[in-house]
Amino acid sequence: MRIVVIGLGTVGRSFCRLLQDRRKELLSKYGLDPRIVSASDTGGIATDENGLDVAQILKLKESGMSVAEIPQKGSKGKSGKDAIESVEAEVVVEATPTNMVSGEPALTHLETSIKTRKHVITANKGPLALAYPALTELASYNNVSLKFSAAVGGGTPVLEFGRRCLKADKILGIKGILNGTTNYILTEMDTRGISFEDALKEAKDLGYAEADPTLDVQGFDSGAKLVIIANMLLDMDLTLKDLSIQGITSVSASDITAAKENGSALKLVASIEGKASVSPIEIKRSDPMCVSGVLNSVKFISEFAGEQVIIGKGAGGLETASAILRDLLDIRQSMRI
Amino acid sequence: MRIVVIGLGTVGRSFCRLLQDRRKELLSKYGLDPRIVSASDTGGIATDENGLDVAQILKLKESGMSVAEIPQKGSKGKSGKDAIESVEAEVVVEATPTNMVSGEPALTHLETSIKTRKHVITANKGPLALAYPALTELASYNNVSLKFSAAVGGGTPVLEFGRRCLKADKILGIKGILNGTTNYILTEMDTRGISFEDALKEAKDLGYAEADPTLDVQGFDSGAKLVIIANMLLDMDLTLKDLSIQGITSVSASDITAAKENGSALKLVASIEGKASVSPIEIKRSDPMCVSGVLNSVKFISEFAGEQVIIGKGAGGLETASAILRDLLDIRQSMRI
Repeated sequence: MRIVVIGLGTVGRSFCRLLQDRRKELLSKYGLDPRIVSASDTGGIATDENGLDVAQILKLKESGMSVAEIPQKGSKGKSGKDAIESVEAEVVVEATPTNMVSGEPALTHLETSIKTRKHVITANKGPLALAYPALTELASYNNVSLKFSAAVGGGTPVLEFGRRCLKADKILGIKGILNGTTNYILTEMDTRGISFEDALKEAKDLGYAEADPTLDVQGFDSGAKLVIIANMLLDMDLTLKDLSIQGITSVSASDITAAKENGSALKLVASIEGKASVSPIEIKRSDPMCVSGVLNSVKFISEFAGEQVIIGKGAGGLETASAILRDLLDIRQSMRI
Repeated sequence: MRIVVIGLGTVGRSFCRLLQDRRKELLSKYGLDPRIVSASDTGGIATDENGLDVAQILKLKESGMSVAEIPQKGSKGKSGKDAIESVEAEVVVEATPTNMVSGEPALTHLETSIKTRKHVITANKGPLALAYPALTELASYNNVSLKFSAAVGGGTPVLEFGRRCLKADKILGIKGILNGTTNYILTEMDTRGISFEDALKEAKDLGYAEADPTLDVQGFDSGAKLVIIANMLLDMDLTLKDLSIQGITSVSASDITAAKENGSALKLVASIEGKASVSPIEIKRSDPMCVSGVLNSVKFISEFAGEQVIIGKGAGGLETASAILRDLLDIRQSMRI
């Protein structure tokens, strides 16, 4: 199977490494023989229809260089879109950074993949939060798969679990703690009584928060994941602007204390119960979805099977890469070639 | 699809009710048109190749009568095995009470179903705990499905979740609180300081524990579920006798207190980490798998996706029936008729 990898940050590189490390097993167990025929980063692209040398790519990236520097195969200044358009491949893996304003460049990568009839897997919440209905329609029209397990819950199969819960049952509501950074901040404010600012600084120092943590602390990351969950599992047609979103920037020590006195903890909760919203609310400490630290949790409330909660690390390069690989195997199976 | 229902206790009746209530949706959404062509209880069987009247069965059972009393269609004294052998059907739903010593009569029902080339779904842990390797081989040889989602985790799709976690990943260990009755007892001993005997009595009064709670409190119910999980997800070939099993009957107030002082709670934990065992051990209260009351939890430790926990009610008629229905829909899909 010929694969184009767009974006070689933590997730893209982890995915390449996973393919390499599991090559034997992927072939023997799933009949998957992956070849990365093109890869792109901000410096350009590299292309080889016989498959690029993954070890070489990883080494290059670790030394801070671009794949465009690979002799004969690299092209400086070319874009991910160029790679998708010019290369023959079955699948595109889109792993560029999230942009919640325009969704770019990921949105263009997804559209280009679909229009050139390539299956596409993304870990990127931006384009899905902004244009889910249009993208899924485009994919369906062009008869290709658009997969995005990795966009919600990292390695935790939240969407598949929900789909399974749905089978012959009805999901009445979904609630979740969908962002590890804000959960870390709120947990530290709660357990150690430190301020929002101090907790945020700590989260940055530990690498849990980005240099610009706006998407996390203002609730947009949680909102984007909620859009994906709602559209996929509840057949809604939401985009980010349909949500009421409130972040945690104005959460004070006294809010935290008040929750404590109720036997609860203040959590940034994304929920769909009729309306879709994201806001800091009190969750009983005895509630299984009340998880601490960087953990994520999602509660499904079903008509017959009752309440079910799924908990896991919501992010991390290797975890996210493992979700992309699951999507890839699903595509492999559906192709039956 | 022609279905034989063996056993009309809480689970069997809930399943019948679910089929009836969702008839329209099952047909429109899944192309499933279920007909119960035979049903059995301890008094006998009833058979109608055009499909029995589900409302009539439910009414009869509520008034404490046997389906054998249905005019023209009932046969007193006939067994579930007779029904399976004499009726043409695609699927048998086995929902008799669990027997962990001989596995009977469920074991015979499963074997008879498979030998007469009927797909079979069971909610019964007994035969699976005692003869999993033989049963799965028999089913595979006869080219029929043997499904048992309902035997572990009630409505919570534990096995499917684990299978999904496995995809291109490796499960390094599994740990779980797999029995709601013992978890209720331990929770009450912990929160209210009551004795094992008092907590057990309460569990009986509330209907959480059976009149004979041996299977629960001695750890065999947890052990049986662990056998199923280990065999299905880790390709082991266990039966119940391969496990080291210790129940909670000798847990004392001081054991509970000692756990508390460590920031932990004493839980009956079934685990596979190399060896398979069931025993009361201390679990940190901050661990997401440390759930209270009748809840169950299962933690999967995967090589790439990390630790993932799934929590839900482990039992209940409707929850279990919903798992049987999911299995039925899977069979329907694989038949593609």
